[in-house]
Amino acid sequence: MNICIGVIGGVQAAAESLSIAEEVGREIAKAEATLVCGGRGGVMEAACRGAQAESGLTIGILPGDSRVEANDYVDIPIVTGMGIGRNIMVVRSSQSIIAIDGSYGTLSEISYALQLGIPVIGINTWDISENIHRAESAKEAVQMAFELMG
Amino acid sequence: MNICIGVIGGVQAAAESLSIAEEVGREIAKAEATLVCGGRGGVMEAACRGAQAESGLTIGILPGDSRVEANDYVDIPIVTGMGIGRNIMVVRSSQSIIAIDGSYGTLSEISYALQLGIPVIGINTWDISENIHRAESAKEAVQMAFELMG
Amino acid sequence: MNICIGVIGGVQAAAESLSIAEEVGREIAKAEATLVCGGRGGVMEAACRGAQAESGLTIGILPGDSRVEANDYVDIPIVTGMGIGRNIMVVRSSQSIIAIDGSYGTLSEISYALQLGIPVIGINTWDISENIHRAESAKEAVQMAFELMG
Amino acid sequence: MNICIGVIGGVQAAAESLSIAEEVGREIAKAEATLVCGGRGGVMEAACRGAQAESGLTIGILPGDSRVEANDYVDIPIVTGMGIGRNIMVVRSSQSIIAIDGSYGTLSEISYALQLGIPVIGINTWDISENIHRAESAKEAVQMAFELMG
Repeated sequence: MNICIGVIGGVQAAAESLSIAEEVGREIAKAEATLVCGGRGGVMEAACRGAQAESGLTIGILPGDSRVEANDYVDIPIVTGMGIGRNIMVVRSSQSIIAIDGSYGTLSEISYALQLGIPVIGINTWDISENIHRAESAKEAVQMAFELMG
Repeated sequence: MNICIGVIGGVQAAAESLSIAEEVGREIAKAEATLVCGGRGGVMEAACRGAQAESGLTIGILPGDSRVEANDYVDIPIVTGMGIGRNIMVVRSSQSIIAIDGSYGTLSEISYALQLGIPVIGINTWDISENIHRAESAKEAVQMAFELMG
Repeated sequence: MNICIGVIGGVQAAAESLSIAEEVGREIAKAEATLVCGGRGGVMEAACRGAQAESGLTIGILPGDSRVEANDYVDIPIVTGMGIGRNIMVVRSSQSIIAIDGSYGTLSEISYALQLGIPVIGINTWDISENIHRAESAKEAVQMAFELMG
Repeated sequence: MNICIGVIGGVQAAAESLSIAEEVGREIAKAEATLVCGGRGGVMEAACRGAQAESGLTIGILPGDSRVEANDYVDIPIVTGMGIGRNIMVVRSSQSIIAIDGSYGTLSEISYALQLGIPVIGINTWDISENIHRAESAKEAVQMAFELMG
């Protein structure tokens, strides 16, 4: 069974966050883990692009009812038809989660992860709990994601 | 169609929060609105008890796969079998939401409500956004819930 | 806690089926049970109309993301945002289910009910199992729904 | 984006059905498509085993709340926590679906697929619609799955 690491963050994100997300994707792929995300744009797309650049595998758990809405770097679209209700599945399907930037959608995912005891590593994101492990770089974040997973 | 007001908050809650929740339930019922909640204990149970004391109607959107898990003051159990993934439906089914106390589960619901533009009134709860309307009392919270709903 | 009886059947239905659905709704209300359905048109709407005519309570578990899509006879809209994935919740929230007419959506609900061991009473509907209890009239169907529920 | 073909069928299945499922998995992998299934035992496990034997990729969309429940041949577990409510996602995530044997759970998936217009190829399974395309062998089923997908 593949090791699955989640990357969460908003559709809208600052250039710096997108750059970090892409490097996080690269590092996940280089570590031979599978990237799980919500399959849309912004942080999700940047992370998938990075992972594919290193020949990694990318899973997009989509809100809508068609695989067409996946970003261009998703290998496997999971079509939920559940809207943002799919966030819980992005969380549950990840052994640890890297949160980058993000707005309320990302916060719902962080909340679920903290409730479920799934490790959350944060970069430039919501600071609502001491249980979010802070990372300063993409490399550090992915390293922590591996160390903290159950 | 009934007016539906959500009450969210944790299974574990301080006595003061439970007391406020019960009064919120009473006020919702006195205003002839229907109370929507997650159907379990703590804040949810206290709110349902208050609503029933004023002959109000209570809906519990349950996480598990049996109506048996509803608290004793739920009139209509909605059995989702989705675990905490049901939180999105508590939010979507509410025209405005009163958050009392609460931990990460409550935070996931607040996040969803803010993302969807559903008004959130907060009492002794997460302070993560200026978009959460602060209330000082149960009465004020319910009044705001009516004023702010779309 | 209210007794909850589900009524399932298609948005498109023959006039005779709509007439039966309306009478089923009436009988459910007269028996002081709550009617649970998918909240849309056709059989669902007819059943809700019948229930409201007898001052019964009607719950519509909606597929979309707004209460606006409920038919005019729904008292409590449960807004799932899950599309037809909401069918499982119509089933789980019902203590027994009356199926009238219906196409593939109805068949998915009948399948779920049979899998979960929730009694199914059928009128002019799919004939795929001996475990579907056949009724000849609305009155008989509602009577069977009460007798068979757990 | 990978081509995704679903395989559905029961946890309990006759030896012949398991043998067909395994060959279906092999053929999907040989055609370089990704196998999507519910991730549990029986037909699902046999299909995954066949796919992995040909170095194919297997996705298991699980009902429970842990990746541990996946069968031994799942590469990517999608953890839904939605119970059998996850069936809709197995269907939506498949571009065409091969149904082998199966009971009511399989029937709920066939119903959803027919409702959504996703091609269903059936081998020794429910015969409830002319829209289920009958195949006589695993090879033929996979060939039809490719021909019929949108």
